[in-house]
Amino acid sequence: MTIQVTLVQIDNYGPWTVTPEPRREMDLQTLQSRLFADVAQFLGHRDAYVFSTRFDNMIAVTNGVDGAAHATLQESIGNRYPVSISLATGVAARPIDALEAANERLQIEGSAQDEGRTEVLSGEYLSETDRSDIQIAHFDVVDATGKYTDRLNEFDTYSTIQAAYGSLMRYLRRKHGALAFFVGGDNVIAVCPDLPERAFNAAVDHVAADVEVALQVGVGRGSSAHEAGFAAKHALEDCRHDGTSVELFGAPAAGD
Amino acid sequence: MTIQVTLVQIDNYGPWTVTPEPRREMDLQTLQSRLFADVAQFLGHRDAYVFSTRFDNMIAVTNGVDGAAHATLQESIGNRYPVSISLATGVAARPIDALEAANERLQIEGSAQDEGRTEVLSGEYLSETDRSDIQIAHFDVVDATGKYTDRLNEFDTYSTIQAAYGSLMRYLRRKHGALAFFVGGDNVIAVCPDLPERAFNAAVDHVAADVEVALQVGVGRGSSAHEAGFAAKHALEDCRHDGTSVELFGAPAAGD
Amino acid sequence: MTIQVTLVQIDNYGPWTVTPEPRREMDLQTLQSRLFADVAQFLGHRDAYVFSTRFDNMIAVTNGVDGAAHATLQESIGNRYPVSISLATGVAARPIDALEAANERLQIEGSAQDEGRTEVLSGEYLSETDRSDIQIAHFDVVDATGKYTDRLNEFDTYSTIQAAYGSLMRYLRRKHGALAFFVGGDNVIAVCPDLPERAFNAAVDHVAADVEVALQVGVGRGSSAHEAGFAAKHALEDCRHDGTSVELFGAPAAGD
Amino acid sequence: MTIQVTLVQIDNYGPWTVTPEPRREMDLQTLQSRLFADVAQFLGHRDAYVFSTRFDNMIAVTNGVDGAAHATLQESIGNRYPVSISLATGVAARPIDALEAANERLQIEGSAQDEGRTEVLSGEYLSETDRSDIQIAHFDVVDATGKYTDRLNEFDTYSTIQAAYGSLMRYLRRKHGALAFFVGGDNVIAVCPDLPERAFNAAVDHVAADVEVALQVGVGRGSSAHEAGFAAKHALEDCRHDGTSVELFGAPAAGD
Ligand SMILES: Nc1nc2c(ncn2[C@@H]2O[C@H](COP(=O)(O)OP(=O)(O)OP(=O)(O)O)[C@@H](O)[C@H]2O)c(=O)[nH]1
Ligand SMILES: Nc1nc2c(ncn2[C@@H]2O[C@H](COP(=O)(O)OP(=O)(O)OP(=O)(O)O)[C@@H](O)[C@H]2O)c(=O)[nH]1
Ligand SMILES: Nc1nc2c(ncn2[C@@H]2O[C@H](COP(=O)(O)OP(=O)(O)OP(=O)(O)O)[C@@H](O)[C@H]2O)c(=O)[nH]1
Ligand SMILES: Nc1nc2c(ncn2[C@@H]2O[C@H](COP(=O)(O)OP(=O)(O)OP(=O)(O)O)[C@@H](O)[C@H]2O)c(=O)[nH]1
Ligand SMILES: [Ca+2]
Ligand SMILES: [Ca+2]
Ligand SMILES: [Ca+2]
Ligand SMILES: [Ca+2]
Repeated sequence: MTIQVTLVQIDNYGPWTVTPEPRREMDLQTLQSRLFADVAQFLGHRDAYVFSTRFDNMIAVTNGVDGAAHATLQESIGNRYPVSISLATGVAARPIDALEAANERLQIEGSAQDEGRTEVLSGEYLSETDRSDIQIAHFDVVDATGKYTDRLNEFDTYSTIQAAYGSLMRYLRRKHGALAFFVGGDNVIAVCPDLPERAFNAAVDHVAADVEVALQVGVGRGSSAHEAGFAAKHALEDCRHDGTSVELFGAPAAGD
Repeated sequence: MTIQVTLVQIDNYGPWTVTPEPRREMDLQTLQSRLFADVAQFLGHRDAYVFSTRFDNMIAVTNGVDGAAHATLQESIGNRYPVSISLATGVAARPIDALEAANERLQIEGSAQDEGRTEVLSGEYLSETDRSDIQIAHFDVVDATGKYTDRLNEFDTYSTIQAAYGSLMRYLRRKHGALAFFVGGDNVIAVCPDLPERAFNAAVDHVAADVEVALQVGVGRGSSAHEAGFAAKHALEDCRHDGTSVELFGAPAAGD
Repeated sequence: MTIQVTLVQIDNYGPWTVTPEPRREMDLQTLQSRLFADVAQFLGHRDAYVFSTRFDNMIAVTNGVDGAAHATLQESIGNRYPVSISLATGVAARPIDALEAANERLQIEGSAQDEGRTEVLSGEYLSETDRSDIQIAHFDVVDATGKYTDRLNEFDTYSTIQAAYGSLMRYLRRKHGALAFFVGGDNVIAVCPDLPERAFNAAVDHVAADVEVALQVGVGRGSSAHEAGFAAKHALEDCRHDGTSVELFGAPAAGD
Repeated sequence: MTIQVTLVQIDNYGPWTVTPEPRREMDLQTLQSRLFADVAQFLGHRDAYVFSTRFDNMIAVTNGVDGAAHATLQESIGNRYPVSISLATGVAARPIDALEAANERLQIEGSAQDEGRTEVLSGEYLSETDRSDIQIAHFDVVDATGKYTDRLNEFDTYSTIQAAYGSLMRYLRRKHGALAFFVGGDNVIAVCPDLPERAFNAAVDHVAADVEVALQVGVGRGSSAHEAGFAAKHALEDCRHDGTSVELFGAPAAGD
């Protein structure tokens, strides 16, 4: 299992947002979400995943995307936006270690708010990919519509989902060095190291005990984020179909 | 103080994402963030604010935006996306109560996953606006770049900011019926009822005690979300300039 | 009949496209078409029309859109693109004269490639609107699909449509000071001064004689471009339904 | 010299634009230009070019882009737009013949307005690419800013540029089976078969005699549209620098 992670960072963004005076918030929101959408399209079409995270910093799983493609992405954003981006890439067995390696490459070049440090492109890229390089878990709240969306006000629903996400994210990070991201609705996608089925059962149990939200999770593997994530989505459909709470793609979850 | 809140909900989105089979995640991400960007542009140009929240459900502060404009937005999205949206609007003194009213209008029409319940447009709209209708607080982490971005890996930075956001959001909701949203970077925008300066000091203290993150906050008022939010941004610049942790627009924060 | 026309010009765009060296053409194309789309959304939601024209210069019919809205548009583009725009607005009975007035306001401030001349915002704006301020004609090729799209190669189809458009555009400009724009497919939208039905018959006849392309046209009036244009579209549907070649909204075209 | 051309056609678009009743024109314009921008980004990042042409039908030069990438593009558009696209690809020595081949593959499947004919994906794809597969000429008006943009009203400038484009496009099509596209501003990009320098001189002379517009042109070659087009842009910079009217990349144009 080898994961290639890319950190996408907008260069010197903080100062730009308030120079010469604060910019309209909805323009910043539009800029940020369109930039994310463009990166998602670029990487998505290469079977990679990117997560919006803090929007000024985004985390991507880029197995199969080489340095030349990273350079093209950087140039294209620079040509079309009033801001530029830096890209740093790392490789490791655990997602968190790959991200650490990527981050260090960027931090060594200077601060995120250093005017002189722009368009860094630094990284190591996997030259080969393997069918089982990546394991992705797609978590989802059981019956979110019936329990929350159709009953509570949206802020309280959101708050509940965020609490579940926070609990899950911190658990997976601490326990396994996995990176979990909220992707909208009631969905969380976790990029994992090599984990057995019982680890997912334990995660679901942890969240249920911690914040009383019932999760179900599909788990998949593949040579790219898309392949692993797609298998995970199909496995999640199996949970829905069979009423199970964990499904590994290809095999029913033990105890379900 | 009177707040008009609009709930934006994608109709029957859950089933669509998996029909006829699961759709590529990066396409969903692109769709969601572009839809949000379009709503942000539409409402932003009318001096309203919208927050991405769960993406399939977005919360907007729409003082000054009438029913006809809401109808135009709904039609335009319907014309350009493979999904449609419902819009429900409520009015109240406290943000949470306005949202509740909006939400009920939608829930009464059917479930978010009811195929037959599409393009609901329901609401009451303020016919007048007043200079002090809205109070917005723009919170931001003190020296996020130096303490986190340039030092930790991005996931741990993100996790820290999320923890601060979670703590702040739940505090403001419980204590004041305020709605706080993460807007990227290290920023949280809170839509508040009529609150005195000490309430903001207390919020900052709460987060510091709860999760050990130091916040600063600018507070502004206006007849629209943009006006109030813009004043808040300027007040936040005063915090930065003077090293204070709370600034009300126009007056220095007591005790700073 | 009073028409308000706005010229949208990207500031100093030529030099930008080749500095420091030529930029990738597909990035320029993306930038240009997204900028156009953003202007179209902004103005369209205010019932105005904008045409892509040369992309670095766009022509808009903006009855009902005031100076403040123009300023908001300019600021929003400046916040989100690597280029800025100038906006000049003129008012007259004939479209071409309104455009002339707008253009002069811009040209007087300096060249389109003058580095120092950026974000010009200059114009007179109609303070009132009237139901019959604008007359719009929506022209379309009869059975373009059957005669061209399904038979010829796309370039020859395109060439035929362009020839028809060129013939029509020059005729309407010369004869009536009307501004006709190709809007995709087989469609041309003409912004007209006050013209009687026989003028449209003559235009259709001219194109048939000049380049042997059969057109049909719906004509509408309104206080805004959208109102007039929408009536024109409905009138065009009447042409399709009745097999006529000219329909004025509300009354069948004489001689059909 | 071998060119791979892809025809992109929106499925059954005409009926969609008027069902259940005519859609707002600015929404159609936005949809069309964003769809074009998305195709431009997708293909552009693979070193291909696409031209907006009639927007419901677009023509692309796709040497180096295989069938799998075409399938990904089609799926992604289908996931994010209310309309779908068909893609047909052909290969030949002359651009027009490659397009003919592509077009026939689509026409054989049914009409552009046949409800049942959606998401056609049909084509032959080059398995190898060569440094001199593609020849692209980038034409541009000499001093367009000084002669037209800064002097005339924008419509008359546009009309002049369109006349020059029409003249050039028809000449190149008839004489050489080349496909020339207006790409904004005063620029025309022509996809050519193998042509000697004097052919470009003749084209420039033709337009000068026909419509009295002075052109300059840079010509480049490459294994992809981007490579050839980029070389052409650099050659055009040489024209600007040296005051010549034709430059082949690498060699000064004879007689200049
Ligand atoms: N990003 C993303 N969001 C999704 C996906 N599938 C569903 N969603 C979101 O999740 C929300 C809830 O949908 P579901 O999970 O299908 O509905 P539910 O009510 O929780 O029902 P069950 O999950 O079937 O128990 C939807 O509105 C979407 O916003 C997906 O694959 N990716
Ligand atoms: N949405 C939004 N994000 C902002 C805004 N201003 C700054 N940011 C984000 O916040 C991040 C951190 O920037 P700053 O807050 O300026 O930097 P800092 O290091 O925390 O320094 P100080 O706040 O000055 O103590 C930036 O990268 C942006 O992502 C804003 O007005 N709106
Ligand atoms: N911009 C724009 N384009 C349109 C509109 N209606 C149709 N089109 C375009 O025109 C093309 C041809 O469609 P139609 O005009 O409906 O088809 P037709 O074969 O010419 O048949 P008839 O016009 O009914 O004789 C479509 O593919 C669209 O690109 C419109 O309202 N606006
Ligand atoms: N699509 C595209 N448009 C361009 C490019 N370069 C310039 N333009 C457009 O062409 C317009 C005119 O710019 P120039 O051609 O640089 O200016 P000019 O006044 O004609 O001067 P010279 O060409 O130097 O004689 C610009 O506003 C752009 O819209 C390009 O590479 N691609
Ligand atoms: Ca669920
Ligand atoms: Ca900060
Ligand atoms: Ca037609
Ligand atoms: Ca030029």
